[in-house]
Amino acid sequence: MQLYSELFSKTRKEAPKDEVSRNAQLLIRAGFINKEMAGVYSYLPLGLRVLRKIENIIREEMNALGGQEILMTTLQDSSVWKKSGRWSESVVDNWFKTKLVNNGEELGIANTHEEPLTQLLTNHVRSHNDLPLYIYQIQTKFRNELRAKSGLMRGREFLMKDLYSFSENEEDFREFYEKCAESYLSIFKRVGLGEVVFRTFASGGSFSKFSDEFQALSDAGEDIIYVDDTKRIAVNKEVYTPEVLSSLSLSKESLQEKKAIEVGNIFPLGTRYAEVIGLSYLDDAGKRQHPYMGSYGIGLGRLMGAVVEILSDDKGIVWPEEIAPYEYHLIVLGEGEVEKRAMRIADELEKKGASVLIDERNVSGGVKFSDADLIGIPHQLIVGEKTLEKEGFVECKERKSNKISMVEVNTLYE
Amino acid sequence: MQLYSELFSKTRKEAPKDEVSRNAQLLIRAGFINKEMAGVYSYLPLGLRVLRKIENIIREEMNALGGQEILMTTLQDSSVWKKSGRWSESVVDNWFKTKLVNNGEELGIANTHEEPLTQLLTNHVRSHNDLPLYIYQIQTKFRNELRAKSGLMRGREFLMKDLYSFSENEEDFREFYEKCAESYLSIFKRVGLGEVVFRTFASGGSFSKFSDEFQALSDAGEDIIYVDDTKRIAVNKEVYTPEVLSSLSLSKESLQEKKAIEVGNIFPLGTRYAEVIGLSYLDDAGKRQHPYMGSYGIGLGRLMGAVVEILSDDKGIVWPEEIAPYEYHLIVLGEGEVEKRAMRIADELEKKGASVLIDERNVSGGVKFSDADLIGIPHQLIVGEKTLEKEGFVECKERKSNKISMVEVNTLYE
Repeated sequence: MQLYSELFSKTRKEAPKDEVSRNAQLLIRAGFINKEMAGVYSYLPLGLRVLRKIENIIREEMNALGGQEILMTTLQDSSVWKKSGRWSESVVDNWFKTKLVNNGEELGIANTHEEPLTQLLTNHVRSHNDLPLYIYQIQTKFRNELRAKSGLMRGREFLMKDLYSFSENEEDFREFYEKCAESYLSIFKRVGLGEVVFRTFASGGSFSKFSDEFQALSDAGEDIIYVDDTKRIAVNKEVYTPEVLSSLSLSKESLQEKKAIEVGNIFPLGTRYAEVIGLSYLDDAGKRQHPYMGSYGIGLGRLMGAVVEILSDDKGIVWPEEIAPYEYHLIVLGEGEVEKRAMRIADELEKKGASVLIDERNVSGGVKFSDADLIGIPHQLIVGEKTLEKEGFVECKERKSNKISMVEVNTLYE
Repeated sequence: MQLYSELFSKTRKEAPKDEVSRNAQLLIRAGFINKEMAGVYSYLPLGLRVLRKIENIIREEMNALGGQEILMTTLQDSSVWKKSGRWSESVVDNWFKTKLVNNGEELGIANTHEEPLTQLLTNHVRSHNDLPLYIYQIQTKFRNELRAKSGLMRGREFLMKDLYSFSENEEDFREFYEKCAESYLSIFKRVGLGEVVFRTFASGGSFSKFSDEFQALSDAGEDIIYVDDTKRIAVNKEVYTPEVLSSLSLSKESLQEKKAIEVGNIFPLGTRYAEVIGLSYLDDAGKRQHPYMGSYGIGLGRLMGAVVEILSDDKGIVWPEEIAPYEYHLIVLGEGEVEKRAMRIADELEKKGASVLIDERNVSGGVKFSDADLIGIPHQLIVGEKTLEKEGFVECKERKSNKISMVEVNTLYE
């Protein structure tokens, strides 16, 4: 259990004046993050707990797909990026670059990892027996954004899960691509956005007709999408043309225009990177081939920001159970016997595997209630003199529904 | 369990020609890391498993000290560094810096975090009730090294645990400092370097007479230290003077000159950062004071590199139990019944909580044996026709001692 009095990052009355996004304002005021500069946020203990829970959900799903986890580097040698043409700022306009002090050589600060991973695999892939490969990492990306005004949703520095698939042929690639799309929907459901996330057709760039985005409906979103509520799919404005609609058997009449936050995307890459970097394998007929690639991204901070944007209310954040920093927020209204009872309840819960934040500060009940609502832990347990009167029971407020009831302590967390 | 055939990072015959350090050569050949450029290494699945185990040991020890974990940022606003004077390359000569594309503003790429954390705490520390604070992170650092020729031991990019302590006064600071020193010795013992690590007096910089380094004896080390084997302490060459020896009651005669790898350091910082950045608290007399700070670092990759340098032999790596990528390496010499038996043994071990790597490739026994020795998992289990003859037993080779014996499967991992 964690005593709130000992947690260094308490709630704050105000977010910094230059912070205009609701997700960052709430997360700063609730003590989850700290703004270092526009688009750059540190994670404080509560925020890091949420981030780790999101990370673990994603890791479980990627491992279930057969993903192998690695950790690539931020510093990037330019040579491999020159092979693909993406070193140039006229092609990739959001590079951060830096220089080696010993020889002045320019280095990239990674914004993605298609090139270096493809290069790395040239040491490990020889034949069709080495494929398919699904390789992922949960690693920090850097993007030199012109504007960074959406809090955690458009960071200049952010943690990202990026998986890259390498398949023998297009058919195998497509099969994995669809499995990964399912897995993404499962991730968004687990973090509490199941209802509002739509698989969305988007531009495929030069390698494919379409890529797929996962868009969460929200007025804070930067994207415009057209949603078919019955079919549970959507089309991004960038490909919203009569030809595309007809090719997808969608009719304009059944689509609604919505603002949305892109919480994930999956992208067919074809053989382009393998070709320019020289990754190949011998197929079972002994012929040299290039693997078909795909890339699959989820920004962890962006996902956390989207949850806050979409699920919070006028009192503060409302965390879904699976990614809440703690399951229970114990509000202690008194000292002596009351505090002892609170500790006993917390002990019982922790023995069952639940996590508990205990607010035993010497401040008014009103402050504790409004802090608890701001912080947004799903279940608030209120322990006061009243609790002592009814052994085995405690007052419980559900943050989401605001419903208050007396519940039996031993029925909690079962 | 992990099938070796499915792991994408197999052993390699050669490390890159420009790789001169033994730790990186072995880790590259064994498939644990990939060299991106001098001093910059990616972690492949086996390497990441070791790194995570080291990370978890360190996290456990830091939490036991009362540490609160956060995650700060790589991108650094220059303003706070200008306050301390450490923005200038004439003071800190290993900065990487970069620029914002929107306004050309120069940003730092963090090599340490005293300044931004002290700044962050100005939002959270008011009174002596908010202290002490022990705040740490496990986060990537960047150092623009002139030379990076020691593999994982002197990286340009590396994962570091850095803890910062904020105490009310020097006495409280010292008490924590000594506890942290004990905790460091416990970490180095747990990762398998207990015998060879010495707490070492080193220069304290401008804030203190001494700082403390934790030096692991190794001919690959870049530091020279003088070791008192009986007292289990050492003195770094930089403070090896008659005055210092006498102040520490050490005599030159009982000291031996040794090369060593610095695997950790702890550093008194006094009130300097709090003063220049403006972090203060009201003491119980209502007087404004600056907290006493200390910093406490361990490079995770460097520690991993040191373990490889110090414990490997002429056949390859020798992982200590607690940080090995897997506990058991099952070498399958045959198919059909032999492979079935191997899988059954692996199942039994995993049910007990052990982790198992299974080499069931269609290659010779010799290749499997030498790969297993190179990879360095502590216990090799050899399953062949012979195993089938004696139900319930398996041949086991201890990687460290080379001792081979028939053991009862159900006595393993207990």
